[in-house]
Amino acid sequence: MSDLPNFKFDLENAKGWSSAAGSARQHTVDEFPISTSFAAVSMRLQPGALRELHWHAIAAEWAYVISGRCRVTVIAPSGNAEIADFGPGDVWYFPKGHGHSIQGLGKQECHFLLVFDDGRFSEFGTFSITDWMSCTPPEVLGQDLSLPSEIVAKLPKKEVYIVQGEVPPEAPPAALNPNLEPSQLTHKFRLGAAPLMQFAGGTERLVSAQQFPISSTITGVLLTIKPGGLRELHWHPNADEWQYYIKGRSEIGVFGANGKYRQDEFGPGQVAFINRGFGHYIKQIGNEETQILVAFNSPDYQEISISAWLASNPPQLLADNFELDIGAIERFPRDGRFICPALS
Amino acid sequence: MSDLPNFKFDLENAKGWSSAAGSARQHTVDEFPISTSFAAVSMRLQPGALRELHWHAIAAEWAYVISGRCRVTVIAPSGNAEIADFGPGDVWYFPKGHGHSIQGLGKQECHFLLVFDDGRFSEFGTFSITDWMSCTPPEVLGQDLSLPSEIVAKLPKKEVYIVQGEVPPEAPPAALNPNLEPSQLTHKFRLGAAPLMQFAGGTERLVSAQQFPISSTITGVLLTIKPGGLRELHWHPNADEWQYYIKGRSEIGVFGANGKYRQDEFGPGQVAFINRGFGHYIKQIGNEETQILVAFNSPDYQEISISAWLASNPPQLLADNFELDIGAIERFPRDGRFICPALS
Amino acid sequence: MSDLPNFKFDLENAKGWSSAAGSARQHTVDEFPISTSFAAVSMRLQPGALRELHWHAIAAEWAYVISGRCRVTVIAPSGNAEIADFGPGDVWYFPKGHGHSIQGLGKQECHFLLVFDDGRFSEFGTFSITDWMSCTPPEVLGQDLSLPSEIVAKLPKKEVYIVQGEVPPEAPPAALNPNLEPSQLTHKFRLGAAPLMQFAGGTERLVSAQQFPISSTITGVLLTIKPGGLRELHWHPNADEWQYYIKGRSEIGVFGANGKYRQDEFGPGQVAFINRGFGHYIKQIGNEETQILVAFNSPDYQEISISAWLASNPPQLLADNFELDIGAIERFPRDGRFICPALS
Repeated sequence: MSDLPNFKFDLENAKGWSSAAGSARQHTVDEFPISTSFAAVSMRLQPGALRELHWHAIAAEWAYVISGRCRVTVIAPSGNAEIADFGPGDVWYFPKGHGHSIQGLGKQECHFLLVFDDGRFSEFGTFSITDWMSCTPPEVLGQDLSLPSEIVAKLPKKEVYIVQGEVPPEAPPAALNPNLEPSQLTHKFRLGAAPLMQFAGGTERLVSAQQFPISSTITGVLLTIKPGGLRELHWHPNADEWQYYIKGRSEIGVFGANGKYRQDEFGPGQVAFINRGFGHYIKQIGNEETQILVAFNSPDYQEISISAWLASNPPQLLADNFELDIGAIERFPRDGRFICPALS
Repeated sequence: MSDLPNFKFDLENAKGWSSAAGSARQHTVDEFPISTSFAAVSMRLQPGALRELHWHAIAAEWAYVISGRCRVTVIAPSGNAEIADFGPGDVWYFPKGHGHSIQGLGKQECHFLLVFDDGRFSEFGTFSITDWMSCTPPEVLGQDLSLPSEIVAKLPKKEVYIVQGEVPPEAPPAALNPNLEPSQLTHKFRLGAAPLMQFAGGTERLVSAQQFPISSTITGVLLTIKPGGLRELHWHPNADEWQYYIKGRSEIGVFGANGKYRQDEFGPGQVAFINRGFGHYIKQIGNEETQILVAFNSPDYQEISISAWLASNPPQLLADNFELDIGAIERFPRDGRFICPALS
Repeated sequence: MSDLPNFKFDLENAKGWSSAAGSARQHTVDEFPISTSFAAVSMRLQPGALRELHWHAIAAEWAYVISGRCRVTVIAPSGNAEIADFGPGDVWYFPKGHGHSIQGLGKQECHFLLVFDDGRFSEFGTFSITDWMSCTPPEVLGQDLSLPSEIVAKLPKKEVYIVQGEVPPEAPPAALNPNLEPSQLTHKFRLGAAPLMQFAGGTERLVSAQQFPISSTITGVLLTIKPGGLRELHWHPNADEWQYYIKGRSEIGVFGANGKYRQDEFGPGQVAFINRGFGHYIKQIGNEETQILVAFNSPDYQEISISAWLASNPPQLLADNFELDIGAIERFPRDGRFICPALS
């Protein structure tokens, strides 16, 4: 047995950006080299704090709200726009390059995870509108927005990034343009309210492009594993897997072919990355139910679990493969188990 | 503010190939490193001059005729073929690997731009039929074409590339094969005659795969900016942008996030390259209307302009973002401007 | 004329794995650097010998049976499964990451070729179930499969790879799971029984995704060339080409633009690789009909042959291009020839 590279990153203890208005911690391939297909940011905004108007040139953004509420504004190249509110369990998706903003609502901090479909992405190299404006000659800005020079002169002289604004009213306000075309695809999916798939050892909720058509590059899963439960040995033929631990702890064992294997433990605020096609299990540890946010870099969900695979083969073939007698094979499971219960 | 890499190339003053029959000047990533997604050739053919039968292994070819007329022949893998004539303002598209030729028509030189959807492409490493024949054993050629050795012996011994031929008759001649299947998709689009979109500061004509189905990898635009006009701050979420200056001059300012910015001036025969997702403006300079040929490496056209984006947001959000009072925000544009007129 | 890289590999004399139960010889980019898009394995299984349950994380598998018979089992992420038998001339396709096994049937050795759509693939780094199990903590395996520790203790302690099992009964046995959903796409195509396209100098049978929908990344051809015949000068605009010589010998001449050319001879058990878009011919040599298995890395088949291309052009254009008189051009073929007969 030989080793595989590190697949664990402590996102909530990463370096980042912080002010009274909010904070952002991230991983890119620079901090977490195995995660070539995903970058992620854990962001917190105080009520009224605004992650200013910005876009991402190289990545789409998929997000999950852990606590609190926020409002986003987003525009598509067609000019269609949406203003929508998000709370715990809600997911958004912004296609690559679409302009957007995020502002805290209500009375408590909003905490959400941003997941980007390219590991080279950096939150700290995104295209913010005040950064752009401060680079642009003032006379060009004035001509573009038909603004007098005294207003142009008051525009920010450097990137604002996160700024404390007023707490927006509960009813979403109208846009400056009274004739705005509505977005033809919604940017919001309520993952926390999606159908609950129940297994002996836990539960799963799923959002792929089938349920959420705009999300053409990312599929998400909310996985809970009961104490003692085991998300059984399986792999995903079509996607890399990114995990964030919301609650509880797990042990993951990853198999990379040719005797390569690595095992590690994960807890709240930590991230795991598992390569496409690599075999793995997730074993709950500790006394608390484990809750994991999972993202796959594919529009659809695919997995093959070992119990379902074995059960799809003739008994004699399994006896040959494992050099066991048929009597032992008769004790193998007859169907997929997905999340196995605690051993009694 | 820090710098971005050079994004300007002087195509008409580049080194190239030249004879009495015609000439070719090009840029690839070797001469113009930023342009990884586009290579381009400015080619001139005298009447009757033939850019011989050839194909490109790694790139599709999109072309725009600036002056004069020419005739192309093209074959698809299905065996379907087309012979078609092109004049000023016309565009052609040859999918990757399809065999074709170009010959000057009429009484004056034909000048056209060839745009390839891969910056590693080189016109001087294309697959020309005489190059191929001169590498192949004569007895194989004779067996293949059922030709006597005395004709095989007269075939060119090296690449012809551009050769002076007879000026073809105005009526397209029949092919050698009288039973040829017609091409199921036309290779020709009359961009110069496409619908004219008019803005206060200029005009645009567009050709994407929607109007020109065979053009599955490139979208083209013919942009004019009136004296003093400004193609406002915008970006393209889905494509890199390649520009060739046909007439007049412009200043371009490009924003690359994180305080990175670069500005340059462009005039006739020069090329600009702007990365996908990078913010930019194009400001007409000088007394003459500016006319620009633009290509995007995508089958559809997408852009987001700053005025439309700002107008899609609530006034208070803009006030928060720019730390301005609502009175100033009320003076922002209510809708997209696209090409702004000269300041009066 | 300058040289191109080596495009020949002697697969049947490559190093590999061998036991009384079977053998495997392979090429990857490590042994055959030009073949970046294809890896291949020549595998032999004795009756009852089992290539154990396994999957491939980075490549789909396309196979052709040369002699003998075998049975495969395969599972898709949907849980749908198939058990199917294969004999000489049959092809299978397993999408990337789908779990499968192969076992020899009948009374003689089964010899088949495995073709993978990624040159970095290695048969000796695939994901075998016993390798995975032997890396995994026994208590996790026991919980997953609900097996007592005494059975878990008997599972193999290292990768089995190919193991001698019982010769399966002729009638395919039922799977352990009596409720298995059938596969919605078959994994089997009888290429040896596909329509025979006849040409003056040989024949071709074809299988693309059109005939075999699951085969979304590979198209196959079975080509025979009669003694003295010539598969004429042609290229494939959309795919790299991999060839395996089943019977007989050929000379291939490959043209790589800019005067680059290479010629080589091939015989039984040898592999040729030709880059996308590169011109080439295949000339039968020796007294025996040549039979070649060909794979392309594309779901559809595309080729342009020189005779059809020339015939799609006007005679005067060809006269200009080749600096020949019209009388000589009149002797060129009027239509595509594809496989030319021996010179009489």
